[in-house]
Amino acid sequence: MTYKLYYWPEIQGRGEFVRLALEEAGADYVDVEREPKSKRAAPLYKNREAPGAHPSFAPPYLVDGDLVIGQTANILLYLGARHDLAPSDEAGRLWVNQIQLTIADFVLEAHDTHHPIAGSLYYEDQKPEALRRSAIFRRDRMPEYLRWFERILERAPKGPGGSDASWLAGAHLSYADLSLFQVVAGLRYAFPKRMKALEPDLPRVVAAHDRVKERPRISAYLASPRRIAFNEMGIFRRYRELDAKD
Amino acid sequence: MTYKLYYWPEIQGRGEFVRLALEEAGADYVDVEREPKSKRAAPLYKNREAPGAHPSFAPPYLVDGDLVIGQTANILLYLGARHDLAPSDEAGRLWVNQIQLTIADFVLEAHDTHHPIAGSLYYEDQKPEALRRSAIFRRDRMPEYLRWFERILERAPKGPGGSDASWLAGAHLSYADLSLFQVVAGLRYAFPKRMKALEPDLPRVVAAHDRVKERPRISAYLASPRRIAFNEMGIFRRYRELDAKD
Repeated sequence: MTYKLYYWPEIQGRGEFVRLALEEAGADYVDVEREPKSKRAAPLYKNREAPGAHPSFAPPYLVDGDLVIGQTANILLYLGARHDLAPSDEAGRLWVNQIQLTIADFVLEAHDTHHPIAGSLYYEDQKPEALRRSAIFRRDRMPEYLRWFERILERAPKGPGGSDASWLAGAHLSYADLSLFQVVAGLRYAFPKRMKALEPDLPRVVAAHDRVKERPRISAYLASPRRIAFNEMGIFRRYRELDAKD
Repeated sequence: MTYKLYYWPEIQGRGEFVRLALEEAGADYVDVEREPKSKRAAPLYKNREAPGAHPSFAPPYLVDGDLVIGQTANILLYLGARHDLAPSDEAGRLWVNQIQLTIADFVLEAHDTHHPIAGSLYYEDQKPEALRRSAIFRRDRMPEYLRWFERILERAPKGPGGSDASWLAGAHLSYADLSLFQVVAGLRYAFPKRMKALEPDLPRVVAAHDRVKERPRISAYLASPRRIAFNEMGIFRRYRELDAKD
């Protein structure tokens, strides 16, 4: 069965967390809105009003046969179980879901640095507020979240030979590791000065990012036209005035 | 086994979604931080640095024997399966999780009306921004979310006799219905003028709220000292200047 992913075609956004899982799994999928126009579905924002019992409030959503699944972390919960991207025991599955939901909180805070008043207004119309919010995000929230990931990696059960090359949920890669890769890549794009200052204290986070990047399928995906470049319409935006080393 | 819930003792907050599920289930639980001082755990905010492989980034978290589960929607996913507060089939379980995650998004937006710049600053230090954010939340976001719930209830499979008394996931109550009750109660507290204007178009949402409120265990809980009153330290706050009929 071919999965159908519905998401904005111009940005990585929240859809990217799903794309990375599908790519790592080698799953058969269509990124529907990026297909030639003739194949396009009704505008994404209309799904909220779409017929059917399970409309999504917002993209992304994934269609698998009769099943329509919305909310990024929920889609990953579904894919993780099917493609060996999450532990098979309940405690492990819940732990990976917990990490993913914490990543979702972090990603939203990163988004709100440039949209603290409303997603429906332009950045230029909320710039003073964005400057204020970004300063506190950089100073407090970035280290709080990133050090939490660092500690988890530090405590995770080690791989063979006791090497440090473990993942967030232990010896096996999960979708949460793919998402953490995306967060590090996004923060490096949006806040290069701040990340440069923080990274020396985050050796495990940086190493885990690098190991994801080098996985054969992820590496092939990142080099392909399927990977959309970071840009100033997405979640992670490079606005010089919002970045600083502290 | 007695569940232990860890959450701030002075507010409903995100912990309330868990409390409502535990109460409806008639589950044996201790609200740890509300116990007499001698029984208190280490300060909640320290859990992030707590020993153990699965620290929570923030409260609430639930302890069930050896299992420590964080993130509200994740806790509810766990409790729902154990206490018949979610469908037993995978599609139904995912759908209820999807609704709950959308409620989490809505609740965070409600919170950020009074804290658009940072959770670590006082409301008084971000009041102009709060006024701006609240106006757009009232005008756009409240109807968008609330009408989505209304449509779901409209389409949900009907109960016996084809009555309108269905729940978000169909004929049986789920934890998402308890959470929607809490959202309606909270919005009525924080935005009474705006809710008065919106409610005539939300008959099913209002009716579902009322049916939750009248359930024997919920009704007993709401009348007990275990239910903390809404206040200006929680998510839903009544600041007169942030409310209006439009």
